[in-house]
Amino acid sequence: MAFSPLITQMITQFCCLPGVGPKSAQRMVFHLLERARADGLALAKIIEQAIQEIGNCEQCRSLSETPICTLCSNPNRDTSLLCVVETPVDVLAIEQTASYRGYYFVLMGRLSPLDGIGPEELGIKHFVHRINTQPPQEIILATNPTVEGEATAHYLTELIKQQGIKISRIAHGVPLGSELEFIDNHTLARSLFARVTV
Amino acid sequence: MAFSPLITQMITQFCCLPGVGPKSAQRMVFHLLERARADGLALAKIIEQAIQEIGNCEQCRSLSETPICTLCSNPNRDTSLLCVVETPVDVLAIEQTASYRGYYFVLMGRLSPLDGIGPEELGIKHFVHRINTQPPQEIILATNPTVEGEATAHYLTELIKQQGIKISRIAHGVPLGSELEFIDNHTLARSLFARVTV
Repeated sequence: MAFSPLITQMITQFCCLPGVGPKSAQRMVFHLLERARADGLALAKIIEQAIQEIGNCEQCRSLSETPICTLCSNPNRDTSLLCVVETPVDVLAIEQTASYRGYYFVLMGRLSPLDGIGPEELGIKHFVHRINTQPPQEIILATNPTVEGEATAHYLTELIKQQGIKISRIAHGVPLGSELEFIDNHTLARSLFARVTV
Repeated sequence: MAFSPLITQMITQFCCLPGVGPKSAQRMVFHLLERARADGLALAKIIEQAIQEIGNCEQCRSLSETPICTLCSNPNRDTSLLCVVETPVDVLAIEQTASYRGYYFVLMGRLSPLDGIGPEELGIKHFVHRINTQPPQEIILATNPTVEGEATAHYLTELIKQQGIKISRIAHGVPLGSELEFIDNHTLARSLFARVTV
């Protein structure tokens, strides 16, 4: 190895980032050390600050540096709707559609007993408290259409059923703009099964 | 934007890394905040430490946290050879061939007047001092075969000529294992021009 111990250590640590292997880590490290030391220091500072200051929003459990996140503290949203998603990135995806004006609850994961993720880890207590104190008229389950996501949606349905709140699940089927020829069998079967009368 | 100001700022700062756009920056940020906070803190710490401690080796100008880098302080190398390269990564590339046992001089760039990089920025004074105090028998110019790399090699040749040291340039031509059909014209022309008598 032709690099000094500290450089080698820095390259190894960069590999903790998703999608970064030894070659890109090396490129990043030399970029910072040779040409962008100010950027590097700013990056180190913001990572440290964010990790120290960012916790979970008390209302929706999403990541936020304030006790209540900007979205939950916005009074102009529709209090009758609560959308349950797996991660903060899902919130962004839904926000970008500009077709939802309600509030969110972020599970920060999905039920996955094999990985030790049960109701406790998803803040279900928190969720029950949320719908008891500020009951919405409708809860939209927008977990991913994966095995774990479906299981989570099913678990939540069972949990909420007793509260007399309307429960809905986002529609699954053939994506717009696609061609039937290229859609996988499961999706196509689902879109036939869940067909809508026009 | 559905993210808090601090998260947005963190995503923007991650875009300073080479090859990282807004989408991968977002993925990295959420990975660190949701699942890998310890890794994130370690990353911030090593970036800061490296930027503070790593300077240039007094002998070869490569990046090193010690005044003399490990390679230059290795007494088992061949003092008769000095190889001039553009960057520390080039040192690694040559080391990996296991066919060179001499010392290096790292320019940390190449002559590029348009970007304001002249002899001063490449530590030419340093280089002259190096070959005057510890004169090698041969200097191998291994700058890249680009316009700037060739110009740098030419500049160094003119500079060293007066010192009576043997000067060589790494060979350019058709790479091993390739097929002539797929080699660009310039490389093929060069390999014909620089043909070697067998």
